[in-house]
Amino acid sequence: MLFAHGARDPEWALPFLAIRDAVRRQRPENPIVLAFLELMQPTLEAAVAELVAEGASSIMVFPLFMAQGGHLKGDLPRLLEPLRAGYPNVPIALEAALGDVPEITNAIASWVVQRSE
Amino acid sequence: MLFAHGARDPEWALPFLAIRDAVRRQRPENPIVLAFLELMQPTLEAAVAELVAEGASSIMVFPLFMAQGGHLKGDLPRLLEPLRAGYPNVPIALEAALGDVPEITNAIASWVVQRSE
Repeated sequence: MLFAHGARDPEWALPFLAIRDAVRRQRPENPIVLAFLELMQPTLEAAVAELVAEGASSIMVFPLFMAQGGHLKGDLPRLLEPLRAGYPNVPIALEAALGDVPEITNAIASWVVQRSE
Repeated sequence: MLFAHGARDPEWALPFLAIRDAVRRQRPENPIVLAFLELMQPTLEAAVAELVAEGASSIMVFPLFMAQGGHLKGDLPRLLEPLRAGYPNVPIALEAALGDVPEITNAIASWVVQRSE
């Protein structure tokens, strides 16, 4: 599962949908869903329920947030706790924020360096 | 200039500081500053004023936001307008959001694919 913030503007979701589609192309054997903290659908709860209903034996949550702030340190654990309690046979793993992944921060720095040449 | 959202939690800024430092290492000839929309310092206004005072002849703003939502479509142009009017001899260019850069979205998708192997 990819997990993004959500926004009022539907166009905001386009890059996240593009990332979801790229992952789907490279991992066609796994169901890949995109869920949102707020303002967009599906919610994390709905997406987990759907994956469990489809027979998922475990779920990995990739937060598509740049950094660990209130959303990832507070909101997300609060959302995950009842889901983990409610689906005790489906472990839900939480991955790092984008800004904690060197390959991603390197790609961002390289883009800035190249554009400012 | 790198431009990020800002947060109450000081740790939130760490990935952005790491990106800034990586760009500085690769572009030591250019002043690289990190500014914030809210909750952290410096503001965009303060950072532009500082760069202009240091003699910048032009400024590129790289928004370290994943997608174009209300912050990039509304807040940022509103902040830039008086700065561009106030410093007519220092053009301020606005770059794409992270999610609009294929090298960056590819890096994110590759990370998800690798982690879920």
